[in-house]
Amino acid sequence: MRIYLAGPDVFLPAAARRGAALKKACAHFGHEGVWPLDPPPQAPAAWAALPEPRRIALGNEAHIRSCQALVANLTPFRGPNADPGTAFEIGFARMLGLKLAGWTNDPRCLATRTRAWLGPAARRDGDAWRDDEGLLVEDFGLTENLMLEGAILASGGFIARAETGARCRWDDLAAFERCLAAL
Amino acid sequence: MRIYLAGPDVFLPAAARRGAALKKACAHFGHEGVWPLDPPPQAPAAWAALPEPRRIALGNEAHIRSCQALVANLTPFRGPNADPGTAFEIGFARMLGLKLAGWTNDPRCLATRTRAWLGPAARRDGDAWRDDEGLLVEDFGLTENLMLEGAILASGGFIARAETGARCRWDDLAAFERCLAAL
Repeated sequence: MRIYLAGPDVFLPAAARRGAALKKACAHFGHEGVWPLDPPPQAPAAWAALPEPRRIALGNEAHIRSCQALVANLTPFRGPNADPGTAFEIGFARMLGLKLAGWTNDPRCLATRTRAWLGPAARRDGDAWRDDEGLLVEDFGLTENLMLEGAILASGGFIARAETGARCRWDDLAAFERCLAAL
Repeated sequence: MRIYLAGPDVFLPAAARRGAALKKACAHFGHEGVWPLDPPPQAPAAWAALPEPRRIALGNEAHIRSCQALVANLTPFRGPNADPGTAFEIGFARMLGLKLAGWTNDPRCLATRTRAWLGPAARRDGDAWRDDEGLLVEDFGLTENLMLEGAILASGGFIARAETGARCRWDDLAAFERCLAAL
């Protein structure tokens, strides 16, 4: 199965090495991993006139269209939530009908993690919690925002949570490999 | 034009009032606003057996499928980035071929805002910046992650930035109205 490797992993210091590690794990499970920084499957001549970020965006959309599945690294990124680029790609792949799976090295559910991140700024409002701007803390016991988790479950997939300490949350691939084994 | 109103606005304390305000602005510009908390256009009987967050997710997907455009509130949500649920919906609508637009009440570009949010944790790495975990700060001069902004631009839309102070960043609708006027 061709699997698009969504996640903020492209921002890691040794991104190329990370891409190679994720692809190697895919191959071990009989899959072909597609790393966002791979050359896109097709690059129409018109793209040459576009600025670099536009070409990367269209290239990644083409990568996703060439796959049968998407596995997303949902480990919280600069705050309690998943990287928005990753969330975008899950939405794109969901509409395309791909099989979806997610993994995270933060074992907490969204509400617990958001309240911990807010700290004293978290405010009780009846049975719910709000942040210091009054915005509700979504609390359905899910790992991520209901749109992301709902799409992953609706596609037949699941979210694997690893019990990883904060110091290796960008290193441990055990939860990722559980996704690969299930696909 | 039927416009899906994506954004973390559903988490605001007076969410129903906010939905009504966004829909009223749409009507002023000759559009029909679709608020995520509206009853979904169709609800198959099988959904009744699903837990509430799954029904909400499928309902919002159905809402988006019923629209010709999506306007997303990209105002940073608990960190320097857009709400992941909103990012998901932009990706879903992008694959569906909808006209897209975004608005934000934070006038800064992604890199500036991320570095401000990181504060002393931001580290120089040649011409680039990284966070305290070593992850790169994306810096293409864009308002948001290149997947979101690339999709919005590729659909023919744009991102409207408002110069709003922190105290009214969830209130000011001027940038939203600029999106509506352009659609």
